[in-house]
Amino acid sequence: MLQKLFLLFAFCALTIGTFGQDAYLNAKSENTDKIYPGNTPYEVKIYPQKFKAKKPKNVIFLIGDGMGVSQVFSGITANQGHLFLENFRHIGFSKTQSADNYITDSAAGGTALACGVKTYNGAIGVDADTVKVKSILEEAADKGLATGLIATAAITHATPASFIAHQPSRNMYENIATDFLNTDIDVFIGGGNDHFTKRKDGRNLVKELEDKGYTYETDINKIAKVKSGKLAGLTAGVHNGRVAERGDMLPIATSTALNILDNSKKGFFLMIEGSQIDWGGHASSTVYIVEDMLDFDRTIGKALEFAAKDGETLVVVTADHETGGMALTGGDMSTGMVKADYPTTSHSAVMVPVFAYGPGAEEFMGIMENTDVHDKMKKLLLSK
Amino acid sequence: MLQKLFLLFAFCALTIGTFGQDAYLNAKSENTDKIYPGNTPYEVKIYPQKFKAKKPKNVIFLIGDGMGVSQVFSGITANQGHLFLENFRHIGFSKTQSADNYITDSAAGGTALACGVKTYNGAIGVDADTVKVKSILEEAADKGLATGLIATAAITHATPASFIAHQPSRNMYENIATDFLNTDIDVFIGGGNDHFTKRKDGRNLVKELEDKGYTYETDINKIAKVKSGKLAGLTAGVHNGRVAERGDMLPIATSTALNILDNSKKGFFLMIEGSQIDWGGHASSTVYIVEDMLDFDRTIGKALEFAAKDGETLVVVTADHETGGMALTGGDMSTGMVKADYPTTSHSAVMVPVFAYGPGAEEFMGIMENTDVHDKMKKLLLSK
Repeated sequence: MLQKLFLLFAFCALTIGTFGQDAYLNAKSENTDKIYPGNTPYEVKIYPQKFKAKKPKNVIFLIGDGMGVSQVFSGITANQGHLFLENFRHIGFSKTQSADNYITDSAAGGTALACGVKTYNGAIGVDADTVKVKSILEEAADKGLATGLIATAAITHATPASFIAHQPSRNMYENIATDFLNTDIDVFIGGGNDHFTKRKDGRNLVKELEDKGYTYETDINKIAKVKSGKLAGLTAGVHNGRVAERGDMLPIATSTALNILDNSKKGFFLMIEGSQIDWGGHASSTVYIVEDMLDFDRTIGKALEFAAKDGETLVVVTADHETGGMALTGGDMSTGMVKADYPTTSHSAVMVPVFAYGPGAEEFMGIMENTDVHDKMKKLLLSK
Repeated sequence: MLQKLFLLFAFCALTIGTFGQDAYLNAKSENTDKIYPGNTPYEVKIYPQKFKAKKPKNVIFLIGDGMGVSQVFSGITANQGHLFLENFRHIGFSKTQSADNYITDSAAGGTALACGVKTYNGAIGVDADTVKVKSILEEAADKGLATGLIATAAITHATPASFIAHQPSRNMYENIATDFLNTDIDVFIGGGNDHFTKRKDGRNLVKELEDKGYTYETDINKIAKVKSGKLAGLTAGVHNGRVAERGDMLPIATSTALNILDNSKKGFFLMIEGSQIDWGGHASSTVYIVEDMLDFDRTIGKALEFAAKDGETLVVVTADHETGGMALTGGDMSTGMVKADYPTTSHSAVMVPVFAYGPGAEEFMGIMENTDVHDKMKKLLLSK
């Protein structure tokens, strides 16, 4: 009886929640809905583990921001026992510490994964001395591979920014947007339209992108129709909304990008961020974490579907850090109900899982530094 | 208010349902010291990954009770960056749910690992219908392999008990002790002397063990001198103390058992429990968790030293469940300081890591059920 009343209370609290533009404030303003009530599960397909290549032609790199082991298991529970993540046999752990802090932020965490250097919290694509370091995406582009970036957050937000921009601070969103014009990236899809169009310097970066040959779209359904060429998809002023608002934006963007990048004869590097698992952790919201975890897992499913068919694609999934210290204190595998508690609204220091599928996956076993994830992907994709 | 009432209710239900009484009382009497201050690190040796056999002749199975990924990483931090656990390249995750509960206790968790069946919380070596199920240790003994059990807790406590006893409840310590006489186990070392000697039924099981040919010792230094034959080492009335009190009891017991079991031409199965990582979690004590995690890791080091030299030994390390929902909220890799917070004093539901080293280690990759850990070890060791 008490439990039913509490579930009703949690449900009411959830429905009152609103969603604005700034992610963190947004997350903080959410009601803390600690119980995910369960839902109809989606079907998880298990793909073969045989690949035609020994080294990958393509790398799809998926970052679940704030996705520790508990976040993964909350998804497994919510989907009643199984996720696409269970396709991964090669598993490791990544130590996420930054150059100046036991607990990293997403900028230093993203830069470690993108550029292979430990740097200070807040740094975007620069080392501890604020010196630019080329990202794996830029190195791939230099070698003639196609490249792409996808996020549900602003594409200028710390994690995606680390793969293309070089700025001393993650908060320099307009400078970060400018850096998208310095690299021959083929596809980017995410929020952040305002950082390209409503700028203090008066530049209209969308116009400049179009002059460089980019197709520019803001509607995910129009984005989904682009089959080739260069694509700038900016689907929100700053961040995209939660799943209820943005729908299948992330899996659709992923399929679209894979379609375009697959035209590249030299292969491609694509980074996809499940941005808002982290925001659910900051908000101590199990509902928010689970819905974003499941959206991210369905996106992983799109990557696996492509990789299994292609046979020359390595898929690597990891996190930049864990958020919330999520502890799974109750649940039901048969209904998908998950209850969690959160001792912090910040990041935690725990090592995060690394999952790999495809040619070269065996490199990602064992306990490693986050910078090793970069080094291994780079070695496999670019040292030929 | 309703939420608070519900949480209180859930807390009471969980505490009563998932935890053995003396361990709980033990843990609650500890100070809740959430910051481990750091200490001089021990040296970690990295062993080669080449083995002379394809299938293992011997299995050393180490269970860190309550050891989730955060507990492992607290140890990595406390030892200033490295543990013996970093020798393990083959990593998986184990889903710990019991037959009747999303959150397992150590009895159902131990029985899943020992016997390969999901059962109800509290069950020792029996299935959900209270029917006896043979453990891997008993099956190994049936096939003529040597066998051993080691714990810092009472050897009659849930985890070790699951490998040799068959009782409907974990609290039936004296019945569990009696079951040690039903199996030809070669070596067991742990606490629990009272359950063999100060019994309601007046039997003196130590006398009966000696009549069966066991050497009986209560002093770890005398135990360490035993080189062959059958050994019953009962170093405490009930549980051994914390590391400060018991010293190197666990690594010494491990080396002693390996020495004796290595005499077996047909090979051996040895289970070693790091029992008190769990109790640190129940006590919300980072100091307790870290000291027991490091003791357990040094014990893993002894197992690896043997396995690396032997070349026919598989070492598997996992946990029965996580305890405390440990969140690493601060620390310093250069001093070994670790700060953690704990949203629960009970177990949590998160999947736990599985680490494997040696011939057959590749079987333990990916996400699996806890019962799969049993099935894989059994297949590798006993289906020849």
